[in-house]
Amino acid sequence: MRTESGLFIVFEGGDAVGKSTQVRCLVDWLTAQGIPTVQTFEPGDTSVGAIIRRAVLDPATRSLSARTEALLYAADKAQHVAEVVRPALAAGSVVVCDRYVDSMLAYQGAGRVLALEEVERIARWATDDLRPHLTVVLDLDPQQAVAGKLGKDRLESAGDDLHARARAFFVALAEADTEHYLVLPARLPIAEIARRIRERVKLLL
Amino acid sequence: MRTESGLFIVFEGGDAVGKSTQVRCLVDWLTAQGIPTVQTFEPGDTSVGAIIRRAVLDPATRSLSARTEALLYAADKAQHVAEVVRPALAAGSVVVCDRYVDSMLAYQGAGRVLALEEVERIARWATDDLRPHLTVVLDLDPQQAVAGKLGKDRLESAGDDLHARARAFFVALAEADTEHYLVLPARLPIAEIARRIRERVKLLL
Repeated sequence: MRTESGLFIVFEGGDAVGKSTQVRCLVDWLTAQGIPTVQTFEPGDTSVGAIIRRAVLDPATRSLSARTEALLYAADKAQHVAEVVRPALAAGSVVVCDRYVDSMLAYQGAGRVLALEEVERIARWATDDLRPHLTVVLDLDPQQAVAGKLGKDRLESAGDDLHARARAFFVALAEADTEHYLVLPARLPIAEIARRIRERVKLLL
Repeated sequence: MRTESGLFIVFEGGDAVGKSTQVRCLVDWLTAQGIPTVQTFEPGDTSVGAIIRRAVLDPATRSLSARTEALLYAADKAQHVAEVVRPALAAGSVVVCDRYVDSMLAYQGAGRVLALEEVERIARWATDDLRPHLTVVLDLDPQQAVAGKLGKDRLESAGDDLHARARAFFVALAEADTEHYLVLPARLPIAEIARRIRERVKLLL
């Protein structure tokens, strides 16, 4: 077990694919092993991040420009890395984070009006290019995820394109860098997904 | 008088040098001439900008990292340009703005821990590289400005270096681009400063 540099594990994927459940499973297992673990998420897990998250979701600020939204998410990441992630890694902890840079690239870059390389440049600057040791992608057809959570009426919504593009983006990132990604079908039983994640994480401890 | 593309005039300079007074003088004069004019400021002159401004100034978020702060100011600018400045210019108005990109460069770039070129890259992206037709710099020794506003006790504060660097930065920008800058000594009488600004603005109308 590394104790000086920590281990940074990120969960990515669409909404309602079971990320928070798997984050919890992994954190519980790490803690049971006596491994110092920090569970966190983006966006919103700092004081200013919570303000940013509310601002982005506030109906009064609905008409945010694409650049404004990307810069706000980048600000959230900058503070989260500086205040939470880097100090925990420096203390030797395992940091398990629900969403990170890839989500910003998928939703602000690949699925939006902004150029992906511009969004990535800002996200990398915000995070001072801190990269996860492992990113777990829980992969599920967006229509299945939405159907499970919100019912079929939601299927025809305008957001489907965005979610389909985001899904394809996560999988493409993972295929291009198998050393740092693990893609798992989100339809598998929860315990089976958790087991496969543990097996991969054990190799990094 | 141009009516199709508008005119973008920015006021820059340290705190308490008389920017808001001169903004008011110019706006009053333009309005008296029957010229459609929009008076605005950065940061904080949109719904989300006001939230951002409060977040940066909130004691609870005092420990913002330098990158977080720069990205929040950039987000404010992105929304301000998209929601206020560009629509007004497109309608043919004169936009008179208290602080703009140069302030971000001076306070987040030239006077801080961040590299100036990185801060400028983000500020230019945020504003989609919209540049003022004219920037008026009100120039005053920071010690005089602070003494006038807050009394001498404040003179020895740690912020003096920042203000001195910011002042030098504004003047250097102006000297490098005299076509788009007008530097005026802030110690001149208010009416004399206002007169000199009007003379320069008349050339642009």
